[in-house]
Amino acid sequence: MIRFSHTLLSALILGTALSGCESSISEKPVSISPQASGFDSVQSQAEQRVKTQISQDVIVPTPKDAGGGYTHEKHKDNAKLIYDAGQLYTLTGDAIYAEYAGKVMLAYADVYPSWDLHPAQKEQSPGRMFWQNLNESWWLLHVAQSYNAIKATLSEEQREKIETDLLRNMADFLSDGSPKTFNKIHNHGTWATAAVGLTGYAINDEDYVEQALLGLDKSGDAGFLKQMNKLFSPDGYYNEGPYYQRYALMPFVIFAQAVEKNNPERKIFEQRDGILKKAIYTTIQQNYGGLFFPINDAIKDKGIATTELLHGVAIAYELTGDAGLLSIAQAQGEFVLTPESRKLAEDIAAGKTKSFNYKTMRLGDGEDGTEGALDILRVSTDPKDLVLVAKNTSQGLGHGHFDKLGFLLYDEGLEIIRDYGAARFLNVEAKYGGHYLAENNKFAKQTIAHNALVVDETSHFNGKVDVGNENAPELGVFFDGGDLKITSAEIKTAYPDVTMDRTMAMVSDAAFPSPIIIDLIEGHSENSHQYDLPFYYNGQLTETNFKITADTTVRRPLGLKNGYEYLWRVGHGSAVDGLSKVTWLLDRKFYSVTSSVPNEAELIFAEIGANDPNFNLRREPAFIIRAKSDDGISIASVIEPHGEYNPIVEYTVNSHSNVKTVQHFENGGDEFIRIETKDGEVVGLAISGETDAEAVHSIEVAGTTQTWTGPYKLFHSQKHLSGDN
Amino acid sequence: MIRFSHTLLSALILGTALSGCESSISEKPVSISPQASGFDSVQSQAEQRVKTQISQDVIVPTPKDAGGGYTHEKHKDNAKLIYDAGQLYTLTGDAIYAEYAGKVMLAYADVYPSWDLHPAQKEQSPGRMFWQNLNESWWLLHVAQSYNAIKATLSEEQREKIETDLLRNMADFLSDGSPKTFNKIHNHGTWATAAVGLTGYAINDEDYVEQALLGLDKSGDAGFLKQMNKLFSPDGYYNEGPYYQRYALMPFVIFAQAVEKNNPERKIFEQRDGILKKAIYTTIQQNYGGLFFPINDAIKDKGIATTELLHGVAIAYELTGDAGLLSIAQAQGEFVLTPESRKLAEDIAAGKTKSFNYKTMRLGDGEDGTEGALDILRVSTDPKDLVLVAKNTSQGLGHGHFDKLGFLLYDEGLEIIRDYGAARFLNVEAKYGGHYLAENNKFAKQTIAHNALVVDETSHFNGKVDVGNENAPELGVFFDGGDLKITSAEIKTAYPDVTMDRTMAMVSDAAFPSPIIIDLIEGHSENSHQYDLPFYYNGQLTETNFKITADTTVRRPLGLKNGYEYLWRVGHGSAVDGLSKVTWLLDRKFYSVTSSVPNEAELIFAEIGANDPNFNLRREPAFIIRAKSDDGISIASVIEPHGEYNPIVEYTVNSHSNVKTVQHFENGGDEFIRIETKDGEVVGLAISGETDAEAVHSIEVAGTTQTWTGPYKLFHSQKHLSGDN
Repeated sequence: MIRFSHTLLSALILGTALSGCESSISEKPVSISPQASGFDSVQSQAEQRVKTQISQDVIVPTPKDAGGGYTHEKHKDNAKLIYDAGQLYTLTGDAIYAEYAGKVMLAYADVYPSWDLHPAQKEQSPGRMFWQNLNESWWLLHVAQSYNAIKATLSEEQREKIETDLLRNMADFLSDGSPKTFNKIHNHGTWATAAVGLTGYAINDEDYVEQALLGLDKSGDAGFLKQMNKLFSPDGYYNEGPYYQRYALMPFVIFAQAVEKNNPERKIFEQRDGILKKAIYTTIQQNYGGLFFPINDAIKDKGIATTELLHGVAIAYELTGDAGLLSIAQAQGEFVLTPESRKLAEDIAAGKTKSFNYKTMRLGDGEDGTEGALDILRVSTDPKDLVLVAKNTSQGLGHGHFDKLGFLLYDEGLEIIRDYGAARFLNVEAKYGGHYLAENNKFAKQTIAHNALVVDETSHFNGKVDVGNENAPELGVFFDGGDLKITSAEIKTAYPDVTMDRTMAMVSDAAFPSPIIIDLIEGHSENSHQYDLPFYYNGQLTETNFKITADTTVRRPLGLKNGYEYLWRVGHGSAVDGLSKVTWLLDRKFYSVTSSVPNEAELIFAEIGANDPNFNLRREPAFIIRAKSDDGISIASVIEPHGEYNPIVEYTVNSHSNVKTVQHFENGGDEFIRIETKDGEVVGLAISGETDAEAVHSIEVAGTTQTWTGPYKLFHSQKHLSGDN
Repeated sequence: MIRFSHTLLSALILGTALSGCESSISEKPVSISPQASGFDSVQSQAEQRVKTQISQDVIVPTPKDAGGGYTHEKHKDNAKLIYDAGQLYTLTGDAIYAEYAGKVMLAYADVYPSWDLHPAQKEQSPGRMFWQNLNESWWLLHVAQSYNAIKATLSEEQREKIETDLLRNMADFLSDGSPKTFNKIHNHGTWATAAVGLTGYAINDEDYVEQALLGLDKSGDAGFLKQMNKLFSPDGYYNEGPYYQRYALMPFVIFAQAVEKNNPERKIFEQRDGILKKAIYTTIQQNYGGLFFPINDAIKDKGIATTELLHGVAIAYELTGDAGLLSIAQAQGEFVLTPESRKLAEDIAAGKTKSFNYKTMRLGDGEDGTEGALDILRVSTDPKDLVLVAKNTSQGLGHGHFDKLGFLLYDEGLEIIRDYGAARFLNVEAKYGGHYLAENNKFAKQTIAHNALVVDETSHFNGKVDVGNENAPELGVFFDGGDLKITSAEIKTAYPDVTMDRTMAMVSDAAFPSPIIIDLIEGHSENSHQYDLPFYYNGQLTETNFKITADTTVRRPLGLKNGYEYLWRVGHGSAVDGLSKVTWLLDRKFYSVTSSVPNEAELIFAEIGANDPNFNLRREPAFIIRAKSDDGISIASVIEPHGEYNPIVEYTVNSHSNVKTVQHFENGGDEFIRIETKDGEVVGLAISGETDAEAVHSIEVAGTTQTWTGPYKLFHSQKHLSGDN
């Protein structure tokens, strides 16, 4: 029975380094309340762990096992110990830590030169200590930092041995010895360049640093700077989404910090308009309730408390002094064993914390920021307030999902309309060894698993990643105003003969006690198609404006392929006079989606979990607006948070939607969504198909001509205009 | 559009007073962090609210509407204002509050004598101001307290008018005028006696107090003291369970506090061995994660932060000075507008808080404590640690569920094996007007909806409440030791020819990294029956030791009646060599149930939600051990929390159960559960059918004779005995 009560902090620092690449079993982190002892207890626990090891033999096994095996894990553990000992020497000045770190490095220097390629080498980019090169980079990245910290305590002879037989030997192997990986514009390349560059600083060899920064030939066509320019968009967005952004961040920030210290004249953190700081901030902006927006192959538990962001926030705080970062550190609730992390804890304890500036923002995707965008609409800076995420990004490579123009909605700290994320139980052996499950490709990636428009029960790009990678959405307006925040995008290539566009707006008007979302999604086509628009609502259904015929005694899957086979149909109904309304309760609040739909539209209620013999999928509900059309489709919806259910003090107010009707008017490219409330108030949103700020548009709406200038306009209710709220 | 941002604190104080009796729409409470401004902000908000009212006309409408209607709500609101004003006068000494309270009382005194029975009167116990007598008691209980607070500020003429035309008039109506309710041993009676008694103290009329305490004829055969003796068990347990206990508590503690102040010689809080203090403590003990154990018709959101317990904790703290109550007050996070509540806030701010002493305890049920018991096993005083609740209580009247010898299991702050609670959305109009749903009787009350043994797909007592009320379980051993906590009970009357008994133990042994539960349930019968033992597990299934044939493409209900029609069968399988093991993941931890079952036993996986046309039920999973037998059945299980899933730092440890086998040996009434771990350690639990502490028992277990003295014995593993943990 392995027990983990002794807990290695280093897991926090190093444990996640290989996420996405292998299932790494590491040790339990230390969870710290910054209000309490904060960093000090992190440090004292690390001291105890290292001291326990000092009295024991150093074991450096000959490489043999693949990932997860004994020799693999032992080398990882040794790197953690070396790293921790180096950090502790820096933090305490106590020579026993330096001595121990040197001792273990010397033991490695004894044997490393004799190791050829690993016996269980992976085909691509094999390592020597580990089965793959990536692990070797990870090892060196940590050991080089430790060597830099303790080298002054070593004899010249010891330095010579460690530098020659261990550090140079390994750095040579990772650079000249592995040119393909080293020069790759990919996060594996970043791990290699960062490791070699840190080694260069540690042993004062400028040559390694130059290669790391500029590529093997020092031309600048490859290397860290190039990776910095290519892997993030100008807004600091990472193509695969926040779940992978977090992971990619680690070698960037660690090495950049060393560059900043050793070559301040390079102004590495100012490069490309401060791209690395942006990348850290952008990663933080992409969370709700502490967890990253789970787009693409994301495991939903991942969030700001991951190791990479513990380092990221600490380093960003050192650079910027932004007290808003302290509130993020408080929310993280954990520290890493670095002086920068200690500074965070000290400043939190000193009461310097301010709120983090959560913002409405468009994060352009792609190297030049021209391949779509992730649009985040926040009603306020409060992290638990209403947030809409519009996924108008590019495909996001192999981990991308087929959900063009999909969205996620959050409120009150909870997911309201949600994305499934990845079908995977990380490291859980019984669940396909902890790898991505078959249901990930077959369900979670498919369009029907998302809040996105599906044509003819077929996923976007027919489920082809390569086609998806070549076709990003075209962005429409994005505006962040007081009463109106709006995002719009179009994709012409998801289906051969259907162009889809979607405009989503966050609207504040006195006719509604809290802000609403207006959603207009259209499929333009001249051919006959079936359109499905799912809403993966979170909560308990309370009412609909139509009769549901529930599948009460037999349930069957909704379809046969493209993800439909994983949905049970649990009920269906028909919209009433072109209007569909669905209300549900989540925790203490009600949510309604009221939609103007084609007259013959069907409403399907579904639940995830059909064809799931291994109980791999979570049971989550959805309703789907389904319509067939010969000439395209428009669905205009109001998503309305309302009321309060309070079972403690026993009252419930406004459990019914306040929307009476939603109507959609079109005049060529001009559109108007008219919302009438039960109180007789009318709110309108005008949208024109073009972005010209000077163009005048007009449209007949319920007998009145509505006119506006520019791409959109919000028509407030009388109640709002009279200031009655 | 009604908005509630102004929020009346009085909701907290009064809002829940009629829970369970009507759906009362009241106002939003003020949520306070005791760390922040605490009580002061509660008070200042109340001051603002009352001051706003002072400038407006007092409206006292003639009674007309039933519960929820205008006149009903208006009279409730007025009582809240009168109460708040009285409390504020006490707290601040500012005469404007007293003056306002007097003014509203005088307005009532003008009209109350002219009111005959309410036009919308309920058949039983009608009121005059309200449709039912209970509301009238509630009104007077609050107004009498306010009168007591402000009477000294009134002129003699004013006092005469209020006392004669309002207070006496109403108290007479509630006592002599409503003898049946007043003398009833029921919480409606307690509301009446408390209201009349408080009036007596307020107007210095000892006669009302005597009637309140001793019944209309002052004989002691009825009245508050009798209610105190009858409605709680000697351990302070309330027959219907904690959800209703909370509600019943309110008039008891409010009036008893007045008795204590006015007639300290009565030592009311010492009566019946301090029953009222016990009742408050017992209510607190029956929570996990702040929410009450949801047995019987409980709405699961109810917990310690309800008004009744805000008063209860404040009053208990005044009586006992127990600093552990301050941690409860902190967990409540809210205050009521009383000096006692202010004292809580002050002492919390002064840092006097200690941990509450959560305990393992047997709470005897019934007036004499002889009608079964609720047994609570807690592994530690930590409120988020492992807790087992064994429901060996009596039926609990009309709100009781048919789950004899059922159980609930909690760990890590979460429900692990859970009870559905009531099928009801309190005050949610779209859900059958907020009343108990049809699914409450048809599913939630039925035995199959619980973690209890079902014979022949029929509920206990054939679902008859009156039969259930007459037949409580017989209690077996209860012991609270260090390594072993144990509970046992038997019920002979749930089925005509099946006697059931269940012994559950919480066991700590070094063979397991954390404590386990051992569960032995038996059905004794000489006839042929089918036995179903459900486990409503909370989480995601990860593995089983048998093959599950999942219902992947068609789902059908598990049965036709007695609650079975509400369960989908989602899969089934067969135990392997008499052993069944099911493992699931919840949040960060794994749980396994390993059971020794009859060789032909079937495992059924089910999910709530069949035959639910209105989407009224939550979708929750269960597995059911099913076996047919001609001569009874024994199922011995180990419920084992294990391992850790950490998706943040990316490690998973001990995701597999450590139990290799569970074996059950019998020798007449003596039983032995032998558990072998995968490491080869053996833990045993011996149980004898009798409670004699001196009797020696022995049994053959796997070739060895095991001998023990007394009703049970825990046989530790070698690892435990050698101190290796």
